[in-house]
Amino acid sequence: MTGDVREPGPAFVAVDWGTSSFRGWLMAADGTVLAESRGGEGMLHCAGSGFAPVLHHHLERLGASDKLPVLICGMAGARQGWAETPYLKTPTRLDALHEGAIRLDTPGDVRILPGIAQARADQPDVMRGEETQLLGVTEPGFTGLVCIPGTHSKWIRIEAGAVVAFSTYMTGELFAVISQHSILTHAVEVAGSLAEDGAPFREALMASRAAPSGLTAALFRLRAAQLLGFEQRADGAARLSGLLIGSEIADAAQRFGAQLPLRLIGTGALGRLYQAALAASGFEVDTIDAEQASRRGLAKAAVQIWGAESRT
Amino acid sequence: MTGDVREPGPAFVAVDWGTSSFRGWLMAADGTVLAESRGGEGMLHCAGSGFAPVLHHHLERLGASDKLPVLICGMAGARQGWAETPYLKTPTRLDALHEGAIRLDTPGDVRILPGIAQARADQPDVMRGEETQLLGVTEPGFTGLVCIPGTHSKWIRIEAGAVVAFSTYMTGELFAVISQHSILTHAVEVAGSLAEDGAPFREALMASRAAPSGLTAALFRLRAAQLLGFEQRADGAARLSGLLIGSEIADAAQRFGAQLPLRLIGTGALGRLYQAALAASGFEVDTIDAEQASRRGLAKAAVQIWGAESRT
Repeated sequence: MTGDVREPGPAFVAVDWGTSSFRGWLMAADGTVLAESRGGEGMLHCAGSGFAPVLHHHLERLGASDKLPVLICGMAGARQGWAETPYLKTPTRLDALHEGAIRLDTPGDVRILPGIAQARADQPDVMRGEETQLLGVTEPGFTGLVCIPGTHSKWIRIEAGAVVAFSTYMTGELFAVISQHSILTHAVEVAGSLAEDGAPFREALMASRAAPSGLTAALFRLRAAQLLGFEQRADGAARLSGLLIGSEIADAAQRFGAQLPLRLIGTGALGRLYQAALAASGFEVDTIDAEQASRRGLAKAAVQIWGAESRT
Repeated sequence: MTGDVREPGPAFVAVDWGTSSFRGWLMAADGTVLAESRGGEGMLHCAGSGFAPVLHHHLERLGASDKLPVLICGMAGARQGWAETPYLKTPTRLDALHEGAIRLDTPGDVRILPGIAQARADQPDVMRGEETQLLGVTEPGFTGLVCIPGTHSKWIRIEAGAVVAFSTYMTGELFAVISQHSILTHAVEVAGSLAEDGAPFREALMASRAAPSGLTAALFRLRAAQLLGFEQRADGAARLSGLLIGSEIADAAQRFGAQLPLRLIGTGALGRLYQAALAASGFEVDTIDAEQASRRGLAKAAVQIWGAESRT
């Protein structure tokens, strides 16, 4: 590489390239953000128009030299992405994530970090992007749980710095499809996004945690409760959120245990909602901003890749 | 009324008027079907165009005299239906269903049977149409369970001929919205209808019954299993059915007990699928055709209404 990542000034470009968004940062070697560029050119957009021109456009906006190394995480490494980056398999050490990166056949040094797969027939699961956040929020040797809420919420168990097991819940996506496409559209005023904390959310959360096997019946009761005058439509979104998040937390607590330290990677309203829900469910929660987690993970991996190479 | 229901020949018209369909039968007093007329003019259709003309049209097709009494069950009695028929409240005797019928302000004698509500703040639930099927498939004094699969599957506990508790599961509707609108569209070949029995269905059924709190994670694993090569897309619909039906049966068995005699009101492929699933789950199942259940219930109630009146 052209620069030493331990020098001040631009050292590399970090990119979180998801399904529907691009977020790039010009980074100093110490992890300081020097510039930022974001756009809606996620994997779905680029699958048609190509990935290289989008990256080039954002590098220009960042004022980044073509010679700066670029490290990418997320769906750009999926089969439908820029170049398929094979999954690492659980159990896998987070500090070895960079070893699974692939280097693209493009000018400059552009690499994509791998996702992680739980390649077990009885518990198959996959992540792309979250592994980099995990690297960002854990110190070497960390043992505990991480919860990453979202469209597909993830719970990850980490032992001595290695991802040993994880489980993905379709919480956010179910909220969207149920509130937009099912009979519950009549029971939910604001469709599409999880609601705010409050009494209706808490009540539904607790009801769902108390009877986690009855989720599909609890969903119908949302409608019945309004027909019978027990509940209000204005609270429908909060109750639907509570039922789905309660079901997720109940299962995760049973699967992974509620005694371990828990780090929550969350942002904004969704982060606050999960923080409240997890605290109400007996977890001791430490919350870290989601973007910061991605950037920190990319920075750690970049130092491992280029910092190490520059010393050889 | 104009005729004695105990005479041969047309005695009344029975109508099952649902959300999206109309099914009418010209009936003899002994329950024999003399003619049938069906159409797509369900509640949703008629809410705009009116209910009376649709009924008139079908009476003509049935060759029914305007003077014959008409007994209707289903969504025609909903708030958005022809005329709101107040719910009976649990616990409620099935042989008293006819007492809750309302008579419409139309020429002739047209009545709508009531639905049943479980008006409890902690377990609110409603049915319209299924109560008539329950009347049709139970003898006086029956104690046991009835399962009515469908868009909104219902499980009903009956004690000594009275509906004492029930629970509605959004099984069929969740299958449709998840297979049509979520990321699982990529994992399910034939969207929109529950699949056939077979090894993939059974495996998913058993997995769901073994871990009923983890439904929203099991749904994501459908996708992950295919990405990782453990499962085939051709089996996706069967596995999705198995997960949802397994979750329903696990919760219902826990809520209502698996020891009581169970009557399954089902038809065609869906009826066979539930029959297989219930038998595999340890239930002793007695299956009754869904339309026959509706007709029998309407006939029983008609005899109670007009047979009783004709004796006074």
